Amino acid sequence: MIQIKLARNYGFCFGVKRAIKIAENAPGASTIGPLIHNNEEILRLKNNFNVSTLNSVEEAHDIKKAIIRTHGIQKEDLEALKRLNIEIINATCPFVTKPQKICEEMSAQGYTIIIFGDKNHPEVKSVKSYSIHDNVHVVLNIEDLDGIDFTNKIALVSQTTRNADEFLKIADFLIISCKEVRVFNTICNATFENQDAARELARQSDIVIVIGGKNSSNTKQLYRIVKEYCKDSFLVENDKELNFSWFTGKKICGITAGASTPDWIIEKIIEKIREIKV
Amino acid sequence: MIQIKLARNYGFCFGVKRAIKIAENAPGASTIGPLIHNNEEILRLKNNFNVSTLNSVEEAHDIKKAIIRTHGIQKEDLEALKRLNIEIINATCPFVTKPQKICEEMSAQGYTIIIFGDKNHPEVKSVKSYSIHDNVHVVLNIEDLDGIDFTNKIALVSQTTRNADEFLKIADFLIISCKEVRVFNTICNATFENQDAARELARQSDIVIVIGGKNSSNTKQLYRIVKEYCKDSFLVENDKELNFSWFTGKKICGITAGASTPDWIIEKIIEKIREIKV
Repeated sequence: MIQIKLARNYGFCFGVKRAIKIAENAPGASTIGPLIHNNEEILRLKNNFNVSTLNSVEEAHDIKKAIIRTHGIQKEDLEALKRLNIEIINATCPFVTKPQKICEEMSAQGYTIIIFGDKNHPEVKSVKSYSIHDNVHVVLNIEDLDGIDFTNKIALVSQTTRNADEFLKIADFLIISCKEVRVFNTICNATFENQDAARELARQSDIVIVIGGKNSSNTKQLYRIVKEYCKDSFLVENDKELNFSWFTGKKICGITAGASTPDWIIEKIIEKIREIKV
Repeated sequence: MIQIKLARNYGFCFGVKRAIKIAENAPGASTIGPLIHNNEEILRLKNNFNVSTLNSVEEAHDIKKAIIRTHGIQKEDLEALKRLNIEIINATCPFVTKPQKICEEMSAQGYTIIIFGDKNHPEVKSVKSYSIHDNVHVVLNIEDLDGIDFTNKIALVSQTTRNADEFLKIADFLIISCKEVRVFNTICNATFENQDAARELARQSDIVIVIGGKNSSNTKQLYRIVKEYCKDSFLVENDKELNFSWFTGKKICGITAGASTPDWIIEKIIEKIREIKV
């Protein structure tokens, strides 16, 4: 039987646990965008707690209670929501509220804002929306810094779920190019810990299964990290996506999961892997 | 004859040129500590312009005009000097005034101050003295950061003449360990340019002669850099220190000089090397 090894740290982070508790205590409410990046868990909340998911604030006219997703929403969306005069329940992860505030304060102090992250990710969109000026740039690498005026003072923040090494590359480039860089390390600890543990796990495994939403930033980061150390690494959302042929000849299967992956999905997958005859 | 190659950038920087001009225009004045880190040039200023050098403020009682050295002096020394009611001529390099001000302002805002530099160097002593609290630490490497409380917000500055790569190592460590790091890149451009040029020069040379004061921080940095790329590298203050045996069998001799090394010393050395039969 294949040996299963769990990462030292994995799965639900503080912000996700908190958001799910909030949602379970607000039956009948609607979240603006998916509460967390995990379709299976969102389906569970719908089926067991009647918490539904809206695509945008525009769909919120007929609801009574709105839940703000863990990733936060854009400032203008929050204002639109407030005008609807409905109950607003804030499940924004406190670690996301931090870069929002930094973006607001630093822009008010005249800093050029650089956000290290994915410009299409809801968290980054929400953080960016808090800048009081347009001199705010979302970058994923040094090349993306091209064309930014470095004569102004610069504040750098990160999407909470990015890779620390890549963040440092950007910070270093800015430090050399600018007279002042204010670096706010807003990568959350759970991200750090899960990434470190994933690296350690991958080194010891023949195959690694990363469990999490395909639209989850932190899950994708975990996948990138393990892939570097163990080429037979696979990202799955649920047990149905497992392919038995992956496991042929493998002895040690490492398992890790994104911050929005519930334990019950992880358990189901482990159960299925245990059944595999290698 | 050995081929002589000069570094693309070397020698007198803006701050040193400015200080020498100031001294030449103040015959009879005394500097508090050596004006620049070059004994030969200081001797020239004494002989030709009657500008003498005092060891400390305590010796300044009988003078009429005091010149503040390029490296700056400690805040309390400046205040003592002011109480003497003599003319004070400030030759502090403007690039040193910058970290002094940063240290003062950031400490006033409650930041823990970290200075990357040599705690015994007059510039670092002067910068440090501008902190309004005692939470200021001088470090040369990551090990020196041991025991510093990282829960407070941190401001990082550099001695103007240090190596950029080592500065980044410390910055990176702080970024990962702290929630906020305010990084002020106070390494001066001349230092950057001279170091880049020295690296390039050393790669192309069989032997490199670095000319400068043995107590000059930027000269020592240049020496460390060229030594990495060309093992036959030597640091000399003047032509008398040249050893002809160093040049046996060598074809290309690279030459660079610290920011406080006057052209006349460099020229004398080149002349002497040209005479060597290899």
